[in-house]
Formats: sequence, C-alpha cells, structure tokens
Amino acid sequence: MPLPSVIPYPATTDFPVENIPFGSALRPGATRAVCATRVGDTVVDLAALVQAGLLDCAALGPAESNLNAFMALGKPEWTRVRTRLQALLSGSDPALTEAVQAQVCVPVADVAMQLPATIGDYTDCYASRNHAVNVGTMFRGKDNALMPNWTHLPVAYHGRASSIVVSGTDARRPCGQVKATPDAEVKYMPDPRVDFELEVAVFVGKGNTWGSPMSVKEAKDNLFGLVLMNDCSARGIQAYEYVPLGPFTGKNWCTVISPWIVTMAALEEFRTAAVELDNPIEQYLVEDRSKSVFNIDLTVKLQGDDIPEETVISKSNLKYLYWSFEQQTAHHSVSGCNMRPGDLIGSGTISGPDRDSYGSILELSWKGTTPLEFKNGVTRKFLQDNDTVKLEGHAQGDGYRIGFGECVTKLLPATPQTF
Amino acid sequence: MPLPSVIPYPATTDFPVENIPFGSALRPGATRAVCATRVGDTVVDLAALVQAGLLDCAALGPAESNLNAFMALGKPEWTRVRTRLQALLSGSDPALTEAVQAQVCVPVADVAMQLPATIGDYTDCYASRNHAVNVGTMFRGKDNALMPNWTHLPVAYHGRASSIVVSGTDARRPCGQVKATPDAEVKYMPDPRVDFELEVAVFVGKGNTWGSPMSVKEAKDNLFGLVLMNDCSARGIQAYEYVPLGPFTGKNWCTVISPWIVTMAALEEFRTAAVELDNPIEQYLVEDRSKSVFNIDLTVKLQGDDIPEETVISKSNLKYLYWSFEQQTAHHSVSGCNMRPGDLIGSGTISGPDRDSYGSILELSWKGTTPLEFKNGVTRKFLQDNDTVKLEGHAQGDGYRIGFGECVTKLLPATPQTF
Ligand SMILES: [Ca+2]
Ligand SMILES: [Ca+2]
Ligand SMILES: [Mg+2]
Ligand SMILES: [Mg+2]
Ligand code: NI
Repeated sequence: MPLPSVIPYPATTDFPVENIPFGSALRPGATRAVCATRVGDTVVDLAALVQAGLLDCAALGPAESNLNAFMALGKPEWTRVRTRLQALLSGSDPALTEAVQAQVCVPVADVAMQLPATIGDYTDCYASRNHAVNVGTMFRGKDNALMPNWTHLPVAYHGRASSIVVSGTDARRPCGQVKATPDAEVKYMPDPRVDFELEVAVFVGKGNTWGSPMSVKEAKDNLFGLVLMNDCSARGIQAYEYVPLGPFTGKNWCTVISPWIVTMAALEEFRTAAVELDNPIEQYLVEDRSKSVFNIDLTVKLQGDDIPEETVISKSNLKYLYWSFEQQTAHHSVSGCNMRPGDLIGSGTISGPDRDSYGSILELSWKGTTPLEFKNGVTRKFLQDNDTVKLEGHAQGDGYRIGFGECVTKLLPATPQTF
Repeated sequence: MPLPSVIPYPATTDFPVENIPFGSALRPGATRAVCATRVGDTVVDLAALVQAGLLDCAALGPAESNLNAFMALGKPEWTRVRTRLQALLSGSDPALTEAVQAQVCVPVADVAMQLPATIGDYTDCYASRNHAVNVGTMFRGKDNALMPNWTHLPVAYHGRASSIVVSGTDARRPCGQVKATPDAEVKYMPDPRVDFELEVAVFVGKGNTWGSPMSVKEAKDNLFGLVLMNDCSARGIQAYEYVPLGPFTGKNWCTVISPWIVTMAALEEFRTAAVELDNPIEQYLVEDRSKSVFNIDLTVKLQGDDIPEETVISKSNLKYLYWSFEQQTAHHSVSGCNMRPGDLIGSGTISGPDRDSYGSILELSWKGTTPLEFKNGVTRKFLQDNDTVKLEGHAQGDGYRIGFGECVTKLLPATPQTF
C-alpha cells in the first residue's frame, strides 16, 4: 500500500513519499544552492525546513549548498532524517501546513538542479559481464573476450571528477587524435565515433580512513545512494590512446549524472540475486550473492535532428551487474585507498544479455557493423551532432515506483581548435 | 650574483631569496594552516605578513589555509607577489624589521607542512622516453618497447587524489591480488613488489573553462609550479589488474609530494632543450623544443633496516622528459577537459639513459633480475619493509641553487585484513 502524501502526485511519479531523494537545488533568484528533496513535481527546500524548525539537521541547513556534510554523518542520521521527512510529507506529522509549504516548496520546473555533491574522486568500473564480453569479443575475438582478471576482481579505472556535469548540460563532440580507419595515419579531428554509456553510479556516504580498507559489509552501511550516469565516450580517441594505461581524453570530456540521489534505503526492497559467479573469489569480496544487486529497469532513449520522435533504443536492468557496488567499494579500498563523502563510483556500462538491452551504441551497432534502425528509416552507427540521449530508471513497488527521473545530454557539434 | 637576504642561510640552501616557494604550514599550537614561503630554514607566514600590512594579497591572507585561491589569480598576480616578497626578503624594502620577523618567521623544524593545495584531480603521465622504453622492453621485448601512440601523444592516466600525502607521511605496504610467480594462482596478499617512482609534478594554477582546451602557449602562463613526487607503486597488484583499463589499486594507495611548490618563475632560467622528437607531432602539441624542459638534478636515496647509511641509488634529471608539462596540459585538455587551480599532473617516472639514472627499482633491478647492491653487501630487488625513500632535486644557478627540499616516505609493513 502506498504511503499518503500531503503534496499530490500521480501514481506513476518517480518520486513518491517512499523515495525521498536528495539533491542540490538553486531556487529562483537565489545565488546559492540548498539541499533539497522531491515529491512528485515539487522540490522541498530542506534548508528552509531546517530554518522553519521542522527538521533538526544542520548538515542540511542553510550553511550547506550540497550533500557532502550530510553524507559524512552516516547511516543512523540518514535513517533519522528519512523517517522525519516521510512523517512530514505523508502527513503523519501535520506540521507541513499550507503556510509552511508556501515557504519550503517550489515547483521542480522553477529550480536549477546542481551537482548533488562536491565529487572529490570519481572512478568508473566495468562490472557488467555482458558488456565486458561484448567489447572483448569485438576487439579480441570470442575466445579471449574476458581477460583472466575480470572474474577475480571488479576491474575499474580512475576517472576525471572536474568534467562531471548534471543532467541537462549539453556536451560537445570532442577533438583528439583519431585513426579515421584502422590503417589511416592518426590525426587531430573531431571524433566521429562518439557514444553514450548507460551506467548507474553510487555516491560514497561515509568514507574510510586512509590505510584501512572498507569491507563489503561496511560498504553496505556507508554507501549513500545511486544516480543515473551517462559516461560520454569518444571511441575513436579511446581506441588509439588507451594502451597501456587505460582510457584518458576519450573519457575525461563529459560525464553526466541525474540530479537526484536515490538512497540505498529507498532501494533496499528491490535487492535481488546477481548472476552466478564464474569462479571462487577472494574472501575480501565475498558477500550474500542473493541480495547483491537491484532490480531496477533502465531505459535509453534517443532523439535527433533526423529522429524527431524520441525512441527507446535499449532496455536494460541494474541486476545485470556481476560485481555489486559493495564489492566495487571493497576492492577500490583493498590497497588502503581512502574514500571520502561525495566520491562517485560508476558501475560501468550495464548491458543485458540481448541486443535490445545493450548499454552503448558501440554494442547496439556492434562497432558500426549493424547500425541501429529507426522507424523513419534513419540509421545510427554512433551519435550524430545534436543527438539527445536520455537515460531513465525506476523500480516497481507495490502501488508506487521509486525512480531516478532522467539523465539527459545533447551532443553539440565539435569546435576544433585552429592554429 | 646571488641576491642578499635579511634572513641568513648557507649558499647551499635549496631556498635562497631567488626561490620563493609556496606551501601550507601549520604553526606550533595552531589549528589551521596558513600560506607560507621559505628562505633557508625559515618559514615565513604569509597570512601574518598580510595582517601586518606588508603584503597586499587577500588570497594569501588568514582566510585561506592553502594555495588554491592564490593559484586561481593567474600569472600577473603571481609575479607581483613574488617581486614584493623578494623586495622584503632581500632588504631592498627595509620593512621586514626584527619586530616583524618575530611575528611572521618560524623555524622550519617547528611547523608541520600540509598539502599545499586541495587537489581536485590528479593525473599521472608517462613522459620519459627512457622509462617507457625500459618498461616496454621488460614486458613486451625490445622490438615492441614503445607503443605506436607513445611518440604521438603524452600517454597519461587519471590517478587518485584522495591518497596524495605530503612528504614525511609513512606509507604502508598494500595488500591486493597478486601472482607470486607468473604461473601461480592469483591470491590476496601483501604485495611483495613495492616500488617508488621518481617524478616531478606540476600544479595547475589558472585553469581552463570546460570545453575550451588550454594550448601549450596558454599552459606556459597557467602552470603554477613544481613539486617532487614519489608515485608509490605496487608492481604485483598492478601487473595483474592493469589490463585493459590501466593501473588502479596498484597506484591508489599512496602518492607523496614535497611540501614546497617551486614556481615556474623561479625555474624559468633553467629551461633547456628536450631530446629530439622521433616523428612529427600534431599542431596542438607543437612548441619551442629548445626551451621545453628543465635542467634540474634529481636524486633518489634509500635507507633501510639493513642499510643504515642513506645511499644514493639514482641520479636523474628533469631534462629527460620527452613531453613537456605544457604539452601534457595541452593534451589533457584537448578533448575539452577542464583543469582547475590545484590540479596536479605527475610527469611519470623520470629515467635517464643509464642504469644509474633510472627512476624506479623496477628498472634499477631490471624486474628483479639484477638486484641493487649496497656497500655492506645487502641487495634489493624491490622495497623492503621500513625502507625509506628520499627524493631530492635542485637546479644550480650563479652562486645559488633553487631546490625542492625533499620528498621522503617510509614503507611500513602491511596489515593484511583478517576474515
Ligand atoms: Ca564507463
Ligand atoms: Ca607514475
Ligand atoms: Mg566520462
Ligand atoms: Mg600513486
Ligand atoms: Ni606513427
């Protein structure tokens, strides 16, 4: 049975009172963002709620413009605040009167969402087996698709924090060194092979001390919540540069996340079993496999100059991860690396088993060999200028759904440097 | 002719009035660090100098505990402040009286140096040709030593900012998944093959706007200064994990930098020609090759439980870089990646042409096949527990030298997790 709400919304909203996501919102005319939550299409200004005396949490008060301080408090405080906000928003505590609502509520259309936290470090994993097998098959053949390490540890690489932007920010096709064909000389040019990657990323809440790894069990309490992520990828640049130290300028030009962090608490009931392990793993990565991933439907939509109708191009699910977020975190810190509140870890491209569930155009068009076809006959091998990619995700509860809203990016044409 | 100084020091100091490095110092009993410079063995508290009315620069004043704000001001302000500090410290302006010195000067032994800036993003390059050839020869043979991309672009990877620590902080041997021998099963263990990497890193001063690459020419004005860096590396972990996405937990457990940023202004006179290019490069990387690197002597010293006498194990030089810091920066941002004040870019291991100038034990012991030998008969294939690595660097001017001080790290024994 869904919870009641003092603020009305349709049953199909991503943001019922069961959700209580956290974000950073700039109210109309404001010069400084505030911490916020959302119900239906209404943003609730948490700083104003603290100032009105209805929420006792300085880390969400007017001194903080994003969620790092709140994240650092840890799970007991997250739970207390979530419970309090649900009491106010469901009306079980009647304090959210119309007069208070007039102060603290803003239509979502009137706010400018910001990055929810200052991201100290960003890491991108490679945790979907289907994706790793697809890419490995394309580049190394079926027999060497998975590298030997892949089933022993969650392969990952450090990414660029500075170029993470919030949904709605336009990306620009990057320039770099690309081979137009496998035999061509490498040349500076706009990358003709720009891609999206459907990912979900986790925000670290409470971190760990330098030198003291976070166990999978500790990670379960210390991870704060999830966002959708489009890891914008320049495949031409990446293909040339990535040996032997990994992706660099092919990845560091734009990473887009959805603005509302959906908490682990809200998603707990959607935990489900992950695919079976290929082989035994080291003790520091062992966890209860029956609850290690989440049943969350993920959708990718594309719209472009020649594809006027927004079209679903992939339907995947977060349950296709082979390595859980807790395993990713435990592995990340196994050497003693310290994680800080607000650090972000992307899952890696989340591909399902079939072509219609692949999480990148690289896979959907199988390296350009089987272009995506649209209703009007238009095709895509990679993204074209002015293409807009929209990621969506939600989990279906009993009479309500918990969703992420959207993560949307338009790819603007390149602006090559002149010399 | 060296400049005079109101604060006496020996001619061999790394920190004459010609240097004027910048750092962040915690004074005795203080709870908050201040921006500082150093002459000889005296630290000058710049916040106190601002408060005394002798330096007009709010970005170095008591509101700032490190250098990000000053870095963001850009070259004209850096030049003005440098000139002003040299006037005060050389006595050409007599305002630095004994009374003022009593307020603003502290013996270097009495302060605790902090990280000089909040490092938003950290990147590690691979810019010494000798090092790349050495490592490539070891792992892929002489004929495939350099990957085809290496002479076309400065290969680099994103690193971990959270685990960068300041000189004097002890590191701890990391645990992770390692193959004890090439044919062994991979196993969780303390990495038996821990190494140092002799590097010099550049702090970005003024950054670039997201989407607008920084040219080599702009980089020349926007880079703030250099520090010594020990990129502590766990070779066993790295060897197993790094395919195909690059180094991860083998590198993210500890990176150590020297506390004093020696500015590009102080080093300008030591610019020299880099080694010749192997092939033509793209226009965005072209620069005046005759002035692209620095003639700065670099030394690595080792001391251990069984090597009581600190021993020089390598003498290298910053001029051995193939790719300059300006080229590294231009390449880093070519895709539109934004660099921010305080971002750090490591040069990569700086190896000279001969065995006694290699910048890592991996190379010095040639993968453990030709162990380093010490006076007392002791040998090293890799670092042992309680080994202390000290990096030093300085450039010789006319009657003075500009140095970095030291970057020192002791390797403590591992503390494996128990399950
Ligand atoms: Ca990715
Ligand atoms: Ca390195
Ligand atoms: Mg990215
Ligand atoms: Mg490192
Ligand atoms: Ni070539």
